[in-house]
Amino acid sequence: MIRKPLHIVKVGGKVVEKPESLHYFLQRFSSIPGLKILVHGGGVLATELAEKMGIEVKMHEGRRITDSQSLQIAVMVYAGWINKNIVSKLQSLQVNALGLTGADLNVIQSVKRPVKTIDYGWVADIEKVDAKILQGLLVQEIVPVFAAITHNREGQLLNTNADTIASALAVALSAVFETTLWYCFEKKGVLMDASQDDSFIQILEEKEFIHLKEQKIIHSGMIPKLENSFDALRKGVDKVYILHENALASDPVEGTLLKL
Amino acid sequence: MIRKPLHIVKVGGKVVEKPESLHYFLQRFSSIPGLKILVHGGGVLATELAEKMGIEVKMHEGRRITDSQSLQIAVMVYAGWINKNIVSKLQSLQVNALGLTGADLNVIQSVKRPVKTIDYGWVADIEKVDAKILQGLLVQEIVPVFAAITHNREGQLLNTNADTIASALAVALSAVFETTLWYCFEKKGVLMDASQDDSFIQILEEKEFIHLKEQKIIHSGMIPKLENSFDALRKGVDKVYILHENALASDPVEGTLLKL
Repeated sequence: MIRKPLHIVKVGGKVVEKPESLHYFLQRFSSIPGLKILVHGGGVLATELAEKMGIEVKMHEGRRITDSQSLQIAVMVYAGWINKNIVSKLQSLQVNALGLTGADLNVIQSVKRPVKTIDYGWVADIEKVDAKILQGLLVQEIVPVFAAITHNREGQLLNTNADTIASALAVALSAVFETTLWYCFEKKGVLMDASQDDSFIQILEEKEFIHLKEQKIIHSGMIPKLENSFDALRKGVDKVYILHENALASDPVEGTLLKL
Repeated sequence: MIRKPLHIVKVGGKVVEKPESLHYFLQRFSSIPGLKILVHGGGVLATELAEKMGIEVKMHEGRRITDSQSLQIAVMVYAGWINKNIVSKLQSLQVNALGLTGADLNVIQSVKRPVKTIDYGWVADIEKVDAKILQGLLVQEIVPVFAAITHNREGQLLNTNADTIASALAVALSAVFETTLWYCFEKKGVLMDASQDDSFIQILEEKEFIHLKEQKIIHSGMIPKLENSFDALRKGVDKVYILHENALASDPVEGTLLKL
């Protein structure tokens, strides 16, 4: 079977919150030919809204704890304001966008993360992606736009890591499509020197990653992102890039290509 | 051509904001056999959120003026929190719900209401409903759940009257489906005496409506609702009921049936 190309693009909260950078990014996204999916975050705006409403954002070791009020804010900001703005702006660019959470069409089913030492609250571990429904949308040239919210199929919405949604979608769809996963963020790629934006690695092999991790050259938030990415490659995803949002769909690609 | 039955249900803000009443209502809604669409409001929660954020709700003759901040709140509350909660809860009741605004799949295209004497702000007049896309969803047994937000296809979201969305959907789909439109609210129907809930009219013909309007027995918010409804009947909708949310799908129907 010849698999059609599919591009899954994850974009972070910082890009989507400024109208100008969002507009430029969506133009780049819409220029990708063929089948595509967008997954977006929106953390900064959620933090701002929580402040306005006088709600304290609870953190544990850099990770957000999602209580009921924080969940409501996440759903309002991610699935409401940011998602529908992106959908409307993509429609104006002739992209037939459809905003989704995991609850819509039950496309991503999750469980609340089990409490071990810390209760992270209404946070999801993804259990199942319905690849068949997504395939049905994609062949109709519909472009799914995912907010980082899923549900447990018992009526409970759950806050979900957007990177994890993007890789779970890519893994589930790689059996049917030749899948490229693009992690867009504010750096040019995986950097050898965090203070030098041009120090990005062009091709990062997993054994080199393990080496750089031991040397603490790669650290903190980049580690789960990369572990996620190599895991996706092992599970059948064809290509994973980590790159600046302005480099999306550049030719040749300026950013970090990961290899097993 | 034999048209399949389709039920379009509009439910007001008061029902969807209390977990118990929402749960009971969604159980009734899910018990309707065959093809169905839900359209919901959510005004009270939006007002509460505006108060928490210290934003003043501007009104003119009982009608809300939608400035940029009010639009953001409406999108967050209607398309975010309320819509995704309903979708998730319907999925737990084995209903394959898909949350939509007019922007998603460009299914309802609108224009910003022209400014005559008053500028109502980011408020929509509906221009076009894409019946074909909705038909495609319905035949797959997908249940669209509409938040009262549309867009102008130039990237601008617009606050939209939920009653108007429900009747526009019903009119557009009545060529293909035998369409019943259900307006659910907190009264038992169109009342002869506003203080007596059991004074509801069982069958209201248009000429009787005109008579009751002249006598000022029917007044204020009920007038546009009824004018909307009779207009829908004239444009091909098969049946329109106005009834209490707890009477939805009752047999025989307890509420007001409208007739031309």
